[in-house]
Amino acid sequence: MSDIVTFGETMLRLSPPANERLEDVDEFEVRAAGAESNVAIAAQRLGATATWLSKIPETPLGRRVVGELRQHGIETDVVWSHRGRQGTYYLERGGKPRGTNVIYDREHTAISTAEAREFDADRIKDARVFFTSGITPALSSTLRETTANLLNAARQGGTTTAFDFNYRRKLWSPEEARETLTRLFPGIDVLVIAARDARTVLGFEGDPRQLAHKLGSQYDFTTVVVTRGSEGAVGWHDSVVHDQDAYETETVSPIGTGDAFTGAFIARRLHGDDVPKALEYAAATAALKRTIPGDVARVSKEEVDAIVKEGGTEISR
Amino acid sequence: MSDIVTFGETMLRLSPPANERLEDVDEFEVRAAGAESNVAIAAQRLGATATWLSKIPETPLGRRVVGELRQHGIETDVVWSHRGRQGTYYLERGGKPRGTNVIYDREHTAISTAEAREFDADRIKDARVFFTSGITPALSSTLRETTANLLNAARQGGTTTAFDFNYRRKLWSPEEARETLTRLFPGIDVLVIAARDARTVLGFEGDPRQLAHKLGSQYDFTTVVVTRGSEGAVGWHDSVVHDQDAYETETVSPIGTGDAFTGAFIARRLHGDDVPKALEYAAATAALKRTIPGDVARVSKEEVDAIVKEGGTEISR
Amino acid sequence: MSDIVTFGETMLRLSPPANERLEDVDEFEVRAAGAESNVAIAAQRLGATATWLSKIPETPLGRRVVGELRQHGIETDVVWSHRGRQGTYYLERGGKPRGTNVIYDREHTAISTAEAREFDADRIKDARVFFTSGITPALSSTLRETTANLLNAARQGGTTTAFDFNYRRKLWSPEEARETLTRLFPGIDVLVIAARDARTVLGFEGDPRQLAHKLGSQYDFTTVVVTRGSEGAVGWHDSVVHDQDAYETETVSPIGTGDAFTGAFIARRLHGDDVPKALEYAAATAALKRTIPGDVARVSKEEVDAIVKEGGTEISR
Amino acid sequence: MSDIVTFGETMLRLSPPANERLEDVDEFEVRAAGAESNVAIAAQRLGATATWLSKIPETPLGRRVVGELRQHGIETDVVWSHRGRQGTYYLERGGKPRGTNVIYDREHTAISTAEAREFDADRIKDARVFFTSGITPALSSTLRETTANLLNAARQGGTTTAFDFNYRRKLWSPEEARETLTRLFPGIDVLVIAARDARTVLGFEGDPRQLAHKLGSQYDFTTVVVTRGSEGAVGWHDSVVHDQDAYETETVSPIGTGDAFTGAFIARRLHGDDVPKALEYAAATAALKRTIPGDVARVSKEEVDAIVKEGGTEISR
Amino acid sequence: MSDIVTFGETMLRLSPPANERLEDVDEFEVRAAGAESNVAIAAQRLGATATWLSKIPETPLGRRVVGELRQHGIETDVVWSHRGRQGTYYLERGGKPRGTNVIYDREHTAISTAEAREFDADRIKDARVFFTSGITPALSSTLRETTANLLNAARQGGTTTAFDFNYRRKLWSPEEARETLTRLFPGIDVLVIAARDARTVLGFEGDPRQLAHKLGSQYDFTTVVVTRGSEGAVGWHDSVVHDQDAYETETVSPIGTGDAFTGAFIARRLHGDDVPKALEYAAATAALKRTIPGDVARVSKEEVDAIVKEGGTEISR
Amino acid sequence: MSDIVTFGETMLRLSPPANERLEDVDEFEVRAAGAESNVAIAAQRLGATATWLSKIPETPLGRRVVGELRQHGIETDVVWSHRGRQGTYYLERGGKPRGTNVIYDREHTAISTAEAREFDADRIKDARVFFTSGITPALSSTLRETTANLLNAARQGGTTTAFDFNYRRKLWSPEEARETLTRLFPGIDVLVIAARDARTVLGFEGDPRQLAHKLGSQYDFTTVVVTRGSEGAVGWHDSVVHDQDAYETETVSPIGTGDAFTGAFIARRLHGDDVPKALEYAAATAALKRTIPGDVARVSKEEVDAIVKEGGTEISR
Repeated sequence: MSDIVTFGETMLRLSPPANERLEDVDEFEVRAAGAESNVAIAAQRLGATATWLSKIPETPLGRRVVGELRQHGIETDVVWSHRGRQGTYYLERGGKPRGTNVIYDREHTAISTAEAREFDADRIKDARVFFTSGITPALSSTLRETTANLLNAARQGGTTTAFDFNYRRKLWSPEEARETLTRLFPGIDVLVIAARDARTVLGFEGDPRQLAHKLGSQYDFTTVVVTRGSEGAVGWHDSVVHDQDAYETETVSPIGTGDAFTGAFIARRLHGDDVPKALEYAAATAALKRTIPGDVARVSKEEVDAIVKEGGTEISR
Repeated sequence: MSDIVTFGETMLRLSPPANERLEDVDEFEVRAAGAESNVAIAAQRLGATATWLSKIPETPLGRRVVGELRQHGIETDVVWSHRGRQGTYYLERGGKPRGTNVIYDREHTAISTAEAREFDADRIKDARVFFTSGITPALSSTLRETTANLLNAARQGGTTTAFDFNYRRKLWSPEEARETLTRLFPGIDVLVIAARDARTVLGFEGDPRQLAHKLGSQYDFTTVVVTRGSEGAVGWHDSVVHDQDAYETETVSPIGTGDAFTGAFIARRLHGDDVPKALEYAAATAALKRTIPGDVARVSKEEVDAIVKEGGTEISR
Repeated sequence: MSDIVTFGETMLRLSPPANERLEDVDEFEVRAAGAESNVAIAAQRLGATATWLSKIPETPLGRRVVGELRQHGIETDVVWSHRGRQGTYYLERGGKPRGTNVIYDREHTAISTAEAREFDADRIKDARVFFTSGITPALSSTLRETTANLLNAARQGGTTTAFDFNYRRKLWSPEEARETLTRLFPGIDVLVIAARDARTVLGFEGDPRQLAHKLGSQYDFTTVVVTRGSEGAVGWHDSVVHDQDAYETETVSPIGTGDAFTGAFIARRLHGDDVPKALEYAAATAALKRTIPGDVARVSKEEVDAIVKEGGTEISR
Repeated sequence: MSDIVTFGETMLRLSPPANERLEDVDEFEVRAAGAESNVAIAAQRLGATATWLSKIPETPLGRRVVGELRQHGIETDVVWSHRGRQGTYYLERGGKPRGTNVIYDREHTAISTAEAREFDADRIKDARVFFTSGITPALSSTLRETTANLLNAARQGGTTTAFDFNYRRKLWSPEEARETLTRLFPGIDVLVIAARDARTVLGFEGDPRQLAHKLGSQYDFTTVVVTRGSEGAVGWHDSVVHDQDAYETETVSPIGTGDAFTGAFIARRLHGDDVPKALEYAAATAALKRTIPGDVARVSKEEVDAIVKEGGTEISR
Repeated sequence: MSDIVTFGETMLRLSPPANERLEDVDEFEVRAAGAESNVAIAAQRLGATATWLSKIPETPLGRRVVGELRQHGIETDVVWSHRGRQGTYYLERGGKPRGTNVIYDREHTAISTAEAREFDADRIKDARVFFTSGITPALSSTLRETTANLLNAARQGGTTTAFDFNYRRKLWSPEEARETLTRLFPGIDVLVIAARDARTVLGFEGDPRQLAHKLGSQYDFTTVVVTRGSEGAVGWHDSVVHDQDAYETETVSPIGTGDAFTGAFIARRLHGDDVPKALEYAAATAALKRTIPGDVARVSKEEVDAIVKEGGTEISR
Repeated sequence: MSDIVTFGETMLRLSPPANERLEDVDEFEVRAAGAESNVAIAAQRLGATATWLSKIPETPLGRRVVGELRQHGIETDVVWSHRGRQGTYYLERGGKPRGTNVIYDREHTAISTAEAREFDADRIKDARVFFTSGITPALSSTLRETTANLLNAARQGGTTTAFDFNYRRKLWSPEEARETLTRLFPGIDVLVIAARDARTVLGFEGDPRQLAHKLGSQYDFTTVVVTRGSEGAVGWHDSVVHDQDAYETETVSPIGTGDAFTGAFIARRLHGDDVPKALEYAAATAALKRTIPGDVARVSKEEVDAIVKEGGTEISR
C-alpha cells in the first residue's frame, strides 16, 4: 500500500549524445521516461511511498522500462501485455535557437488498450493520492474512458485525486484537449497546470494569480497550482493565492522539471506541509532536477532540504 | 540510370553494445538495415551501379536512414511521406546458447502504404536488374500488390528480376508466405533461397543440389541459388548445378551475410561472370561481411578480389 | 514474504573496458556484484520470489548497489549504515594466459559490522529457503557469528538452509576456511561446493561423484551439489548421485556462473522439480549467464526453458 | 547538373572529446571538414543542389571523407588519387581563456597536386554558381594556378563566381595572401570576407559598412559581404549597404559558422531572394550551425525558416 | 635532483560522466588526483623540475596512479607498499544548486602508515623548495608526525618550505586542524591559505589583505598568499600586500585550481619573479586549469605566457 | 644511465573501435606505437632500465607520444623539433579473411631528419645494449646514415648492439631493404629476424634452425633469433641452436608481439639468463602481449614469471 499511486505511459526515450543531431548519430542514449512515473519517483524521493500503474508489453523493452523505474525506488504494478508496442520517443537537445525537439513514436502501444478493469481498484482506493495527467487520455479513446473510470474509483475510495494538465500539441488539438479534460475536472481535487496551457487551451486570461483563482473558482478544485517555468509558480488553496519563485539553476535537462515539481508538492502535502511550504519544496526539487540528465528527478530528500535551507553549495569536500 | 534497382524497407536497427542485454543497457547503437538496401550496397561495392527505392517518413529518422545509405555509396530514390512510422528493430547479440534475438517494431510504417504508382516505373524499366525480397510482401497487403506490380513493370521493361525468398517467421506464417510468394514466382528470373526455407516453407525435400534442381524445374526460373549458411551454396543454371564452399571466416556479425552474397552474385553476373565465378565472388563477399559489424557489407572490390585470389592476409604493413 | 532470502555483501565492481588493463585505462565499468544477491536474482528469474538482506552505507554508492539489484527484480531489505565503507572490487579480464584478476577492496565495510539482531528474523523464518555463502563469514569475525546466528534462526523457523562453500583464497587461508565453515555444516541442508574446494580446503579425495557422496554422508546434508566448471556438476540426494553435463557456451563473462547455477537450482527445487531436473535447469542458466557481461544472470525463464528444450538458437527473427 | 559547384580540400578532423586536451586523450572524434564542402552542404540544405569537386587519395580515409559528405546530401565529384596524403587537422576546443586551437597536418596532400585539367570543366560551366575560398590557393603553388584556372572557366561559362577570403595565418603570411588573392579578385563576382581580414590582410580601414563599400568600389565585385562574428554582417550590393544582426545562439561549435552563412546566402540568392533577405537566412543558418557539433551545418530548410520567422523554440512536443 | 619536491597522497578519482549522478551510472571516469602531485605538475609545467614523494600500494591501481603522474611530466619517488589500500574518492559534478560533491574513501591507505625514515632525506635537502599541504597531516596520526619530520628535514637542509593550508571538513574538525597545523607553522616559509579557512578554521577576521597581513605578522612566514576563488588573491611579502585579480574563465572543472595556482606561484618564484609577477602567472595558470577536465593543470608555459600577455584567443588557425 | 637504449620512430596510432572499418567510424582510438619504444618498454617491464631516443615535433601530438611512453615506465630522451610532422598510422583490425590493415602516414616526419650529432653519444656508449630496427633506416636516407652512425658509436663504446630486421613492405622494396640492412650487419651483435623475412628479403632457404645457423655463420653475429609467429622461435648462439615453442594465447592484438619478445629477450640476457632461458621469458612475454590491446606490452615481471612457471591462471580471486 503506497501513499501515492500514479497511472500513465512510460516510454523508452532515445536521444543522441550531448548536442548531436538525430539525423546522423550512430548511438542513442536510452532512458525510461513518462510524466506519471516521474511524478511517482519525485514523490518517493521526497518521502512518500509510491506505486506506478501501467500496461507494458512483455518484451525486453518493456522489462527495461520497469527495471529502470524500480531502480529509482518506486513500486511498479503493471499489466504485462502480449499485444501492442512499447512506446518510444526521440529527443534531440539543442541550445538556442535550435531548441529541444521531440518525435513521438507512441501509437499502437500496449497501454493504449488499457481498461480500468485490468487494474486492481483497491490499489487506488487504499492510496492517499491518485495521480495521472492530461497525456494519458490523449493517447487513445480507450484511455479517455479508463482515465475517467480510475479517477472515479479513487473518488469512491476517498482517495484525493491530483492531475497535471500537461497539454501536448503533438498528440491532439487544443479543442480536443479542452473538451476531454474539462469533462474530467469534476473528479479532480488538485490541478497543476502551466499558465500557457490555461491560456491557449482553456482560453483563460490574466496573470498566473488570476488564472489560479479563476480555475479554482470555476471548477471547484481544492487546490490549483499554476506553473510558469523559470518564473516560478502560484498556488491557490482555500481561496488564497501563494507565490513561489523558481530557484536559480544551471539547466542540464529541462525535461521532467514539471513532474519533479508536482511529485514533490504532493509528497510534502502528504507529509503535512501547508501549501506555501510544499510549493517551496516543489520549486527546490524542480531546480535540482534541471541539473540532472534524463527525465527523472534522481534526488534525495537531504539535497532538497539543503537547497530549501541554504540554496545549495559549490564544492562539498 | 543504375545497373540494379532494389525495392524494400530499410529500418533503424537499435542494438546494445557488444554482448549486453536489451533489458538493461543505457545506450543503443544505431544503424540503417534492410535486406534490399544491403543488396544494393553489396552490388555497388562489387562494381555495379545501384539505386534503392523506398518510401520513408520525412523526419530526422527517415533522413538518418537515407543519409547512411548514401554514405555507403548507392543512389537513393525515396518517396518522402508525411504519414506512417519509420520502421525499427531491436537486435540483441548473444553467443551460444543465447543466440541473436530480433524484436521487430515495423508495423504501421510509411512503406507499408507504398503503391506502385508512387514510383517512377522508368527507373525500373531502364535498369538491368530489379531486385526485391520476400520480406517486402510480408509487410502489408498493400505491399503484396505493390511487389507484384513492380516485378511486372520490370518484366515489361525487359529488366531481369531477382528475388531473395527471405522467409521471416516473426512476420508471417509459412502458409501465408508460401501462398503469397509462389504466386510471385512466375515473374522472377533469379531466385535465391535458403535450403531451410525451401524445406520448411515450400515443403521441398532433398539435399541442396536436389532442392535447386526441383525449384528450377518446377517454376521455370533462369537461375536458382540455394544457400546453406556456413556450408556454402549451390547454383542451378541451364539445368546444371554448381557447388560453392563457404570461405572460412571469423564472424563478428552474421546479419546481412545473405544480402552480401546476393548483391555480389548479381553484380558479378552483370559484369559478365558465369555462374560458378559469380558464386565464388558471392561467397568471398559473404565471408568478408561476417567480419564487419552491422548489416551492411562495407567492402571494396579489391578486398574481395584478394580473397578470391589468395584467401586473405593476417597483417598488411 | 519471499520464497528465498539471501544474506551477504554486494560490492561495486569496477573494471576496465573489454581486455584493457587496470593499470592504464581512463574509465571503469561499474556494476553491483555479490554472490548472495546473484543467487537471489537467478532464483527470481527462474520463478521464485527473492529478497536480499544486507547492510549498506547510506551514500550514493550504497544506493547505487541497491538500485541496481532492484532493477534486476528482487526485493532488497537493507540496514542503512552511517559507518563503514561500501566494498568494491577491481576486475581485470584477460584471455589465456593472462587470466582474470580480482583485486578486493572490501575491508572496513559497513557489512563487516552487521549483527544478527539488526535484521528482522521473521523475514528469514517466513521464507522457504535461506541462503548465504562461505564468503560472508570470511569477511569479519562479527560476520562469522552473524552467519551462524542467521542459519540458526532459519533452522528454528523450519526454513531450509542452503550454502555455497565459495572459498576465496584472497580472503582467508584454507585452514581458517575449513575450521570456520565445517563448524557451520550442521546447520546446513543443501551444500553447493566446487570439487576443487572439496579437495584443497576440506581435504577430500576422489572424483566428483565420490566427493559428493563423502560430503553428504559425513556431514548429514540433505543435498550436496559438487560443481566442476565446464565439466558440469554432480548432485547427491537421498544417497543417490546424479550427473549433469555443462551446456556448450561462448563465454563472455565467467564470473557469477556458479551463483546462477545455485540460484536456478534452488528455484527449481522450490518449484517442485526433482534433483536431476533442477540440475538441468541450473546448468542451462549457468550456460546462459556465461554469455552475459557482468556478474548477474539477467535471464528469463523462457530463455532457460528454450535451452533445456532445444539447446538454443542462432538467429531468431 | 547542380546549382552550385564548390572546389577545395576536405580534411579529416581529429579532436578530443568535449574539453579534453590533445596531449593526453585516448580517443579522437573524426569528422570530414573543409570550407568548400561546408558551403556546398549549407547551400544544399537551404534548397540549392550542390556538387563538391576535389582530389582525394584512394584509401579508406579518402572514402571516409567522401562518404560523410554524401551522407549530408551533396553530390561529390572527386579525382581519386594514388599519390599524396589525406589532409588532417587536429582540433582542441577550450573555453576562455584557453580558446580553440587548430594543428594542421595538411602538407603533401593529394589535392595539393590538383590541376584544372583533371576536372570536367563542363561541371563548372553548367552550374549557376562556382565557389571556392582563399584556403585553396594557400595550399600549394599548383593550387594557386588551378584556382585561377577554374575561376576563369566559370567566368567563360557565364557562371557566377563566389569567393570567401578565409585567411588562415597558419598557412601563409598576410603578404602572400594579399598578393595572391587580390590577383584573383577580377575573376570574382561575390566576395565574402571577415572584417578582421579586410583590415589586417588587405589593409583597409573603417567600420564594416565602410570596408564593404571600399572593397566593392575598388575591385568591381557585384556583391561584397563583410562578416563580423557575433556582431552580424554587412552586405554591399548595387552600391547599397545592408546591415544584418547575428541571432542569439548557444555556441556548441563555432567552427564552420562562416561557411554555413555563405552557403545559405548563395542558396537564397539563387532562390531569388534579394540581398537583405538572403543575409537574414544566412544569419539564421549560421546561428543554427553554432548549436551543432562538428564543422557541418546539418540543418533543414524548415528549421531555418522557423528561426527567421519566430526566432526558435524551447521544447517542441 | 629537482627544484621542488612535494609530499602527499594521490588518489584514484572516480566520477560519473558529465553531469550524471553517482547513484545510477554504469561507468566512472578514472583520474589520478592529489593536491601535492597537482602542485608538482603545475610547477613543472611552468618551468621548474619537480618530484613527488609518496607511499603507494604495489598493485595495478598504485601503478595506475604513478604512471599517470609520470605521463604529466614529473618525477615520482614512491615507497611501494604491500600493505594498505589505494585511496580513492568519488566526485559528482553538478551545476547550481546541486554543486559538486566529494565522497572520500581514503582511510586505511598505504600512505597513512608512511614514516619519515622511509624516504630519502637528501631528496628533500637537495631541493630548492619542499611542499606539502594541510591534507597530509589530516590523514593519520602517523602522517602528522611524518609531515613535521619532513618539514624539519627541509629546514635543516636549507630548503624553503611551502605549505597550502587546504582545510577539508570531511577529514577533520576545524579545531583539530587548527591545533595541528598551527603547530607546523614555525617550520613553514611560504603559506597559501583560502580566506575562508583563515576565518573559519584559524578565527582571523578582516578582508583578505588584512588576513594576509595578520597571518604574516603573527607567525613569521616569509610569504603569505590568501586566495579568494573567483575574486583573485592577495600576496603578502616583506610586509607589503599585493592584489591579484582572477582571470575571466569558462569553468569546466574547478577542482585543482588552487593547486595550479600554488604550483605556478612557486615555479615563478624559483624562476626569479617577484611576488606580483608570480601572482600574475599563478592566476593565469589557475584560469587555464579551470578550462581543463580533471584535477591536473595540463598546461604549457607558452599558453600561460600568452594569457599573461594577451588574455587568451578564440580560434587559432 | 639505462641498461638499454633504443632509437626509432614512435607514431600516433589511430584505429576504429573493435572490428569497425576506417571507412565509416566517427571515432578513433589513439595510442603511441613504435617498434623501438615497444622494445624499451618490454625490457623495462622485465627488469632492465630503458631509455628511448627519438626526434619529435614540439606539439601537443609529440607531447602526447612522449607522455604515454613515460607512463609506461621508460625514460625518454628526445630532440624536440620545430620542423617535420608527427608520424601517424591508421590500423584497422579484422578477423579472417579480412586481416589487419595498416595505412602509414609517416612521411615528412621530424624524425626523418634526425642526424646522429643531435643525440648525446654518451647515452649510447654508457648503455649495456643499444637497439634499433630495420624500420628506422627505411624511413629516410638521412636515417640510413644516422642508424649506421649510432650503431658505430655503440660499438666504439663497447655497447652490445641488437637489431630487429623488421621488414615492412609498405616502406621499401625487398631489394632496397636487403642492400641497406646487410650493410649494417657487421655492426650488429644480436639479430632478431622473422623466418619469412630471412627467406623473402635475404633469400635464405631452409627451416628456421637452418636459417639461424646460416645467418649466424655468414655474418658473424653473436646471437641470432629467428621468430616464427605462433610456431615459436629459434635461437642460435655459440653455434648451438635452441628451440622455443610459443605459449598458447587468446589474441586480442597481435601488433607488438615481436617487440615484446625482443625486449624481454634482451632484458633477460642482461639479467644473466642463458639463451634458452631468455627465449622462454621472451615467449611468455609475447604470449601475454597478445592478450593486451594496443602495441605496448604493459606487463609485469611477476605475470611473466607466473606464465613461465605455471602457464597462467583462469580466475584469481
